[in-house]
Amino acid sequence: MEKQSATEAILAAKEEKGLTFAQIAEAVGRHPVWTTSALLGQQQMSEKEAAAVAAVLDLPDEVAAQLQRFPTKGSLPETVPTDPLIYRFHEIVQVYGTTLKALIHEEFGDGIMSAIDFEMDIERVPDPKGDRVKVTLNGKFLPYRKW
Amino acid sequence: MEKQSATEAILAAKEEKGLTFAQIAEAVGRHPVWTTSALLGQQQMSEKEAAAVAAVLDLPDEVAAQLQRFPTKGSLPETVPTDPLIYRFHEIVQVYGTTLKALIHEEFGDGIMSAIDFEMDIERVPDPKGDRVKVTLNGKFLPYRKW
Amino acid sequence: MEKQSATEAILAAKEEKGLTFAQIAEAVGRHPVWTTSALLGQQQMSEKEAAAVAAVLDLPDEVAAQLQRFPTKGSLPETVPTDPLIYRFHEIVQVYGTTLKALIHEEFGDGIMSAIDFEMDIERVPDPKGDRVKVTLNGKFLPYRKW
Amino acid sequence: MEKQSATEAILAAKEEKGLTFAQIAEAVGRHPVWTTSALLGQQQMSEKEAAAVAAVLDLPDEVAAQLQRFPTKGSLPETVPTDPLIYRFHEIVQVYGTTLKALIHEEFGDGIMSAIDFEMDIERVPDPKGDRVKVTLNGKFLPYRKW
Amino acid sequence: MEKQSATEAILAAKEEKGLTFAQIAEAVGRHPVWTTSALLGQQQMSEKEAAAVAAVLDLPDEVAAQLQRFPTKGSLPETVPTDPLIYRFHEIVQVYGTTLKALIHEEFGDGIMSAIDFEMDIERVPDPKGDRVKVTLNGKFLPYRKW
Amino acid sequence: MEKQSATEAILAAKEEKGLTFAQIAEAVGRHPVWTTSALLGQQQMSEKEAAAVAAVLDLPDEVAAQLQRFPTKGSLPETVPTDPLIYRFHEIVQVYGTTLKALIHEEFGDGIMSAIDFEMDIERVPDPKGDRVKVTLNGKFLPYRKW
Amino acid sequence: MEKQSATEAILAAKEEKGLTFAQIAEAVGRHPVWTTSALLGQQQMSEKEAAAVAAVLDLPDEVAAQLQRFPTKGSLPETVPTDPLIYRFHEIVQVYGTTLKALIHEEFGDGIMSAIDFEMDIERVPDPKGDRVKVTLNGKFLPYRKW
Amino acid sequence: MEKQSATEAILAAKEEKGLTFAQIAEAVGRHPVWTTSALLGQQQMSEKEAAAVAAVLDLPDEVAAQLQRFPTKGSLPETVPTDPLIYRFHEIVQVYGTTLKALIHEEFGDGIMSAIDFEMDIERVPDPKGDRVKVTLNGKFLPYRKW
Amino acid sequence: MEKQSATEAILAAKEEKGLTFAQIAEAVGRHPVWTTSALLGQQQMSEKEAAAVAAVLDLPDEVAAQLQRFPTKGSLPETVPTDPLIYRFHEIVQVYGTTLKALIHEEFGDGIMSAIDFEMDIERVPDPKGDRVKVTLNGKFLPYRKW
Amino acid sequence: MEKQSATEAILAAKEEKGLTFAQIAEAVGRHPVWTTSALLGQQQMSEKEAAAVAAVLDLPDEVAAQLQRFPTKGSLPETVPTDPLIYRFHEIVQVYGTTLKALIHEEFGDGIMSAIDFEMDIERVPDPKGDRVKVTLNGKFLPYRKW
Repeated sequence: MEKQSATEAILAAKEEKGLTFAQIAEAVGRHPVWTTSALLGQQQMSEKEAAAVAAVLDLPDEVAAQLQRFPTKGSLPETVPTDPLIYRFHEIVQVYGTTLKALIHEEFGDGIMSAIDFEMDIERVPDPKGDRVKVTLNGKFLPYRKW
Repeated sequence: MEKQSATEAILAAKEEKGLTFAQIAEAVGRHPVWTTSALLGQQQMSEKEAAAVAAVLDLPDEVAAQLQRFPTKGSLPETVPTDPLIYRFHEIVQVYGTTLKALIHEEFGDGIMSAIDFEMDIERVPDPKGDRVKVTLNGKFLPYRKW
Repeated sequence: MEKQSATEAILAAKEEKGLTFAQIAEAVGRHPVWTTSALLGQQQMSEKEAAAVAAVLDLPDEVAAQLQRFPTKGSLPETVPTDPLIYRFHEIVQVYGTTLKALIHEEFGDGIMSAIDFEMDIERVPDPKGDRVKVTLNGKFLPYRKW
Repeated sequence: MEKQSATEAILAAKEEKGLTFAQIAEAVGRHPVWTTSALLGQQQMSEKEAAAVAAVLDLPDEVAAQLQRFPTKGSLPETVPTDPLIYRFHEIVQVYGTTLKALIHEEFGDGIMSAIDFEMDIERVPDPKGDRVKVTLNGKFLPYRKW
Repeated sequence: MEKQSATEAILAAKEEKGLTFAQIAEAVGRHPVWTTSALLGQQQMSEKEAAAVAAVLDLPDEVAAQLQRFPTKGSLPETVPTDPLIYRFHEIVQVYGTTLKALIHEEFGDGIMSAIDFEMDIERVPDPKGDRVKVTLNGKFLPYRKW
Repeated sequence: MEKQSATEAILAAKEEKGLTFAQIAEAVGRHPVWTTSALLGQQQMSEKEAAAVAAVLDLPDEVAAQLQRFPTKGSLPETVPTDPLIYRFHEIVQVYGTTLKALIHEEFGDGIMSAIDFEMDIERVPDPKGDRVKVTLNGKFLPYRKW
Repeated sequence: MEKQSATEAILAAKEEKGLTFAQIAEAVGRHPVWTTSALLGQQQMSEKEAAAVAAVLDLPDEVAAQLQRFPTKGSLPETVPTDPLIYRFHEIVQVYGTTLKALIHEEFGDGIMSAIDFEMDIERVPDPKGDRVKVTLNGKFLPYRKW
Repeated sequence: MEKQSATEAILAAKEEKGLTFAQIAEAVGRHPVWTTSALLGQQQMSEKEAAAVAAVLDLPDEVAAQLQRFPTKGSLPETVPTDPLIYRFHEIVQVYGTTLKALIHEEFGDGIMSAIDFEMDIERVPDPKGDRVKVTLNGKFLPYRKW
Repeated sequence: MEKQSATEAILAAKEEKGLTFAQIAEAVGRHPVWTTSALLGQQQMSEKEAAAVAAVLDLPDEVAAQLQRFPTKGSLPETVPTDPLIYRFHEIVQVYGTTLKALIHEEFGDGIMSAIDFEMDIERVPDPKGDRVKVTLNGKFLPYRKW
Repeated sequence: MEKQSATEAILAAKEEKGLTFAQIAEAVGRHPVWTTSALLGQQQMSEKEAAAVAAVLDLPDEVAAQLQRFPTKGSLPETVPTDPLIYRFHEIVQVYGTTLKALIHEEFGDGIMSAIDFEMDIERVPDPKGDRVKVTLNGKFLPYRKW
């Protein structure tokens, strides 16, 4: 069973059972964002986490096995995403990329925000003019090593 | 005077005077992230905001005029950024793009997070294991119109 | 059943029954343009709308289920379309893109025309020198948020 | 004097004199959209039209000469535009391209909407929930010739 | 049955029966170039033309149905063709593109040669130093509309 | 003096003197298409031909010298041309490329139409429904050598 | 049977029988380089040549039929080859391309080395410091036609 | 003085003095192909070789200094060359790349033909049917190291 | 059996038997890095080495046969890798590429580090602040041949 | 003074004074690899380090100022490098990328080798069969954070 088939089986079972990602995450004992990215094949689950997914979704062992394999990451088929929701994040990097560079550098010096020692959260912020999506990116600052 | 020359003049004056982006933003009366992106040519300033920049940096009127022109946005010379700091944000879109899609859709339905009715903040989060960069993206949810 | 198979089944049933997109749209209770884009996998139908499609085309429930899933949008396999009809619209963006930018900015200020809070219409305009195609794009103006 | 320099001289003079594209168009005797695209180097003006531009903007003869040269069209530096306003039109082609193909074909048969025998209009549509941009594309239908 | 399968079935039957494109074209009642491009999935046949193809090649009705569907045009898998015969035509556009632009503009004014109201012919020109291929492109001149 | 500067000087002088490409070609003693492509830097002129250009356009010797240098060919800045007139020829290769391959192969066997031992002509064909552009491509057939 | 399947069947049979390309070429009566490129789907064999391949490799008639079809040439899946052996030849074109242009032009005038009226040979040159590969490219010079 | 300026100065002096690449190579004491590629900025000359170039072409010391700097190699501005002469070599890699791989591997085992320990020669081969260009590539075979 | 299927069978068997790459390498009698790259289809094994793999993993003869075939090298589907682990190595080439060029040239003169006569090693370096990955690249210096 | 001009001034001064990168590094008090990459504009120097460079090379203060600015990293103009020395490292990533992924994952679990908390060394390894280049990459392992 390939990674993509495992993902499809998971999404089909989730739809059939009427579960949300948050409910599956609770069963797994992890944050919904991390859990979702793992179900979409971008993270490696522990044996226990994978078993919880298989249990809550009534899926066979090979799905659980697949979730424990080390994933080849990168979830998009194109360099510039065509889906409008995902494109907006690409646009933010295009428009605000140099701003991020300038401000992080001014505050921290030469280095990067890690995308590995990294967490992400997604929240709904109620607003009378229309609710808002709030995405929080939180990564360790890594200074360039000098030697 | 072209947009790029204006940006270079601003950055040179900022370096010479030893000002931070936050200090210029205070003079402008705007958030440091918005102000920085405007100074880097990605936003349009009002006459008063542009005048404040020129004043605090001792720059000629044509710099202020340039800051009020409508900008052609997109700050990066390549589709896939080569600078490691900026690339990490591209990587986050690659790795977590489908996760963002799945979770925003589940919560809000078919639509996008606006990158126009949008704010961004960048903070330093102290951490004994190494301080962290926290970037908050906050955009209005826009549902797809049906007609 | 995948999105593409659902689309193929729909187009085959439509051809066999000799229905137009407008007739299906009437059954659905939506505009023909929106309905067509939903049938081609670019919009999300409600349960009732999807059931109407299945009924009018005698298609199984899984087609209706597919029409209610959230679509990964972007209908073209290439960045520059090769089909001449679709390419003409790409050419219009190439030739008139800066004109659109200049005039919308002059009228509205810095912002965009939304492609989400957006409607499109396609009409035939009779003309003795050859009928004309009239495409109307209608999107909400979204000003850049300052903060 | 090159085309790009002529465009820059025109935009600078327009800004200095505080004229709108519509006012220049009136002087030229053409629609504002056509006039703007000509000023941006995408159309060929007649001698009289070019003279009107030079007169209203106090520009030298070589600008008028440049406006009468046949333009190499295509106003964007990249295939996928990075400016968010222009990108939205690219996105519309991506998301609605196959819809345009299906509906134009159903109505007219195999052929295209001309981008040459073509007019475009841009209007502001007042709306209490936020004004809207209405762009009308109007091109002659050209059926594929059989031989 | 997909377009590509129809094309493959047609070419296989043509090879088996030892027919030339010109012979099929005669049965169809169209020019060999147009007929060939239709058989290769780039044109839309009428019911009668499609029936003639099915008859002369002993092919089932679904091939005839496929030939009447509206084709997504563009016959090449790459932007720059790798097949040497087809590449030479790409090279002609590369080397002579600006020449075509300059001479058509000088003769006709600003506009294009239509690729829709268009005919092509291919002939063998006997020559003692080696026979020559003569390709004639014949398209209606379309002047840019001013409005 | 670089090739591009020579081309610009030639076009400026041609415009000032009000000469057509055909008139320059007559002075050179060559076909207008070949002459135009040489003036645009795609062919190598003999000393006598280059001198005729310099004489008829009152241009200095270094322009004549440049016209005799061996040109790096390829007149277009992009793989997919953005100018609509030139794009139409690219589109013809996209849509009719496999047709050209199939028919030339059927008539001649495995080989190509030379783009080197090659001539091109451009004519205006009067037509009551709108004059037509006729472009003739004429190249030697070169069979693949077997060894 | 498709071209690729024919190639795979040929290579499998060759491996099983322990034949070299040179031995198959001898059976065909052609040079090993030409024969190899034909077996890899880049040349068109005569009926007799194809029959010899089928005989020496014990392959069915449809393989022989495939070898006589006209091939769509271009054997590499990417523009820049990733296989190191093939990349070295790409690198030679990158590094020595302008050298080839300068020297062929100086010796022959404006024109090309044909890749159609063309032969290639590959030899092993014994050398005490390590044997060498010698590749000979031999193509007819084709001067640009003037008209 | 940059590498490109040095190359231009060399070519201009060569043209003015009416020297061939072979004559310069003789002065340098190297093969004409190597010398030409060095003059075009693709090889590093010794002090004595560079001095010989400067002497025979009456060029200043800084040209000689430039010829001794280590070159960033790669002489072509595009991945797929547009100049027809250079493209033919690209086409040979496209069409015969897998043939080169198969035959070199059969003869030598897994490895490559070096493009570093490498020589190239270009000769004119007289032929009554039209002279031929013969290009010889000669590189050391390098077997893949196993460890 | 294709190369990719062989790789998948090998990885599945390795997972099932709970073997490490190092253990398989020991059975093969080669270094773990070389063995891993061979198992991933990038090297050619001898008959004995391939048999050892088949034996230790209980795999059929055709897997062993596949491992002895000459591999088409290049293990990544994209030019810029999207997997973060592999991308870091791409980034190192981007950031340190000119440094490698400058220092190798200064030490060795004009030439390259071979990627063929080449070994790689990967080690874990314990470190109280977090263990480190040490990758050693070791290739023969090949000076550019002058001729 | 821009970054590139600073780099050029540094390299020119280094050549004129006959210094090696190692000698400059000694003056700076850093490793030669780090120092070289800083001189090539890929690292940020401290005030003292930059002053040492200016002193040892007799360069003005603005070069020292430039070396302290935060660099936009990425030293190569193309995605696939054309210079053969740098390409070999790209090839190593292509050929051994999946091997690096498999072995680092097996040893460390899901994560990456940092290219930020990273050191590189380049050594000459004498070898009677030809000296070898040894490049050591040493980066901290960063495990993927789970949350």
